[in-house]
Amino acid sequence: MRSGNILVAQGGGPTSVVNCSLVGVVEEAKRSGRKKVNGIIGAVHGIDGIINEQLIDLRKEPSVTLKGIHRKPGAALGSCRRKMAEDDYGRIIEVFRKYDVRYFLYIGGNGSMHTAHTLDRLAKTLSYGLTVVGIPKTIDNDLAHTDHCPGFGSAARYYASVTREIGLDVASLPPPISVIETLGRNTGWLAAASALARDKEDDAPNLIYCPERVFDLETFLSDVKKIYDRLGRAVVVVSEGLKDESGLYLGGNKNKASRDGFGRDLPGGAASFLAEEISSRLHIRARSEKPGLAARTSIEHVSKVDQREAYLAGQTAARYALNGESGVMMTLERKPGKKYHCAIGAVRLEEVAIAEKMLPKNFINSRGNDVTNEFIDYCRPLIGDSVRSFSSLTSRKFTISKSDV
Amino acid sequence: MRSGNILVAQGGGPTSVVNCSLVGVVEEAKRSGRKKVNGIIGAVHGIDGIINEQLIDLRKEPSVTLKGIHRKPGAALGSCRRKMAEDDYGRIIEVFRKYDVRYFLYIGGNGSMHTAHTLDRLAKTLSYGLTVVGIPKTIDNDLAHTDHCPGFGSAARYYASVTREIGLDVASLPPPISVIETLGRNTGWLAAASALARDKEDDAPNLIYCPERVFDLETFLSDVKKIYDRLGRAVVVVSEGLKDESGLYLGGNKNKASRDGFGRDLPGGAASFLAEEISSRLHIRARSEKPGLAARTSIEHVSKVDQREAYLAGQTAARYALNGESGVMMTLERKPGKKYHCAIGAVRLEEVAIAEKMLPKNFINSRGNDVTNEFIDYCRPLIGDSVRSFSSLTSRKFTISKSDV
Repeated sequence: MRSGNILVAQGGGPTSVVNCSLVGVVEEAKRSGRKKVNGIIGAVHGIDGIINEQLIDLRKEPSVTLKGIHRKPGAALGSCRRKMAEDDYGRIIEVFRKYDVRYFLYIGGNGSMHTAHTLDRLAKTLSYGLTVVGIPKTIDNDLAHTDHCPGFGSAARYYASVTREIGLDVASLPPPISVIETLGRNTGWLAAASALARDKEDDAPNLIYCPERVFDLETFLSDVKKIYDRLGRAVVVVSEGLKDESGLYLGGNKNKASRDGFGRDLPGGAASFLAEEISSRLHIRARSEKPGLAARTSIEHVSKVDQREAYLAGQTAARYALNGESGVMMTLERKPGKKYHCAIGAVRLEEVAIAEKMLPKNFINSRGNDVTNEFIDYCRPLIGDSVRSFSSLTSRKFTISKSDV
Repeated sequence: MRSGNILVAQGGGPTSVVNCSLVGVVEEAKRSGRKKVNGIIGAVHGIDGIINEQLIDLRKEPSVTLKGIHRKPGAALGSCRRKMAEDDYGRIIEVFRKYDVRYFLYIGGNGSMHTAHTLDRLAKTLSYGLTVVGIPKTIDNDLAHTDHCPGFGSAARYYASVTREIGLDVASLPPPISVIETLGRNTGWLAAASALARDKEDDAPNLIYCPERVFDLETFLSDVKKIYDRLGRAVVVVSEGLKDESGLYLGGNKNKASRDGFGRDLPGGAASFLAEEISSRLHIRARSEKPGLAARTSIEHVSKVDQREAYLAGQTAARYALNGESGVMMTLERKPGKKYHCAIGAVRLEEVAIAEKMLPKNFINSRGNDVTNEFIDYCRPLIGDSVRSFSSLTSRKFTISKSDV
């Protein structure tokens, strides 16, 4: 394998551990020595930075800076959501040639993996010696062929913590119903993760709705009513990806300007819509909470397991690349056994480029308003330390004794 | 002063330090010895618990439990938002008589202080020996005659932290605009507090809107456009209390079922409404975040200063009560000098019962889209430890050297 420069880029929505993967790549590339890799280049704002030659020298970053960005929200290099044009790929190879980039590591979701795959094929067609390795990153946990995705565990921990805290608030000041909206455009992984807030039955969340099941408003209202009648309160978690019968996001913004960079409708508004339905149809006070971007930026709620795995995925990707193994994405492979352990594996890029992993059937209950224990077993180790638990008053009844009166 | 029992209750919306005040009361009452106070009673769900005789024995709570609930979201005793009926007051005095309650400590906002004041007067009219002391509690910071309110500092810290984190996300993946909605029904204290997220100019938040100023949509859109044109992004913080010309909450829920226990319209929806306006009118992608209850329940973001002051307010209130000083609410009095220090003072209940403290004029800039340095100086000490700061890459340009090619 000839020597050359390595280039790393971040694509798509940030996660709270996306910089761990970046640091994993850079530290491993440094460790490998100058014989294997010379320049360590960071592209500013992903593919945009390659095309515009906005490239920074990551070898010159002090170790302490790398340590620091390990725990930083947002994508430290800057990210992008570029709609790739035909010309873009050729231009990228041109820039790679100019800067002698022989290793391209792309941290991203399935859109980014598609770009990586296309580049890998084009380089081969052009006989340009390039090794392309993908590093999975998405809070949505929707990449195929990996047990889970770096970024998911921390966002899962966020929703579990926040749902527990909101549950305590709602229980202490009835009657309101709180509808919490999670991120997750098409899949219910994050809504499902809120179930880890529970210590015992009837703890929040009382109901969970995922876009994997057809959403029926009447069933929903009847579910909410039942919980409310029994407990005098309810905490309901809904995915922003819930769609109505016509396939439109519940309460979603219908105007064109709010479509994303790929022209897709943007979700957001399900909780607010459902809270209004509860208020007007059931005549029960309901409010909605939509932490939005707070869920993927919260350093306070980071999962240590997620942090470690994101780092390892970056580190191992650099090793794969420097060994010349091109056209793969790193995966997390859960090993059998009581104690949780994931090894880093690899899958061909073309197999993840388009696929979208939905919550499997056995993770959602038959009524479609909660998760199963199988999901809990799957998800619990990914959030690292358990969600913070809180004491309760023992609340013994006060009785009047002679000495009191 | 004759001996008797002490009763403590929590009213209105919880804060993340409302239980510190409760623990302050209970520990001080215990410390004072049985000669002064015998039973230490907690009312379950505030006034409701008194009227229904749902009373618990707080003397029997183990010290370790009290330590535990010190850091617990929600009101540990349970709270209420009762619309007081004429009969209720008489019934309360009846229960107090039955349980020999001679000291009533009420932790709450201005509604609760009104209740406390009415009870104090009624007890005097009926010649029932009762000492009533109020302990301020509200994230909204809108109580008069106190420098600030326990509960505010922690919620302020929450918004500053979350705004900083979201700011990093938005800066790393342009172009979106994020509109963050804060709690605060009629006052802008919490929206204003998000300004503490900034380390330097152009850090998030770029714009802040408070209900103290008349909201004008055209001015708002023009402000947003200016920021966006210059930076390619914007983080805008708006109070849920923003109202349109007709006095209705922006994007608020107009249906009757969603009014609160007092029949008041409920806000919530300003950020979502404004994000849609930005998208459709300016043709810039915008999204909204509305952490809602997460902001008043987050133990991760608690201000240590707020925690300490909430405890002290409870502790001092118990001392006042046991000294027979009735009809007052505890206040925080900021002392002059460079180093921040607040002493606990007192004000007559009737003076805070109805008043609502708005952001003073000198805390909002002339354009009405940001706070002033005077506000920053006022607010900074209240959040305790500074908001977490994050490293940045030094980002030196990568240049092609001979050895690279």
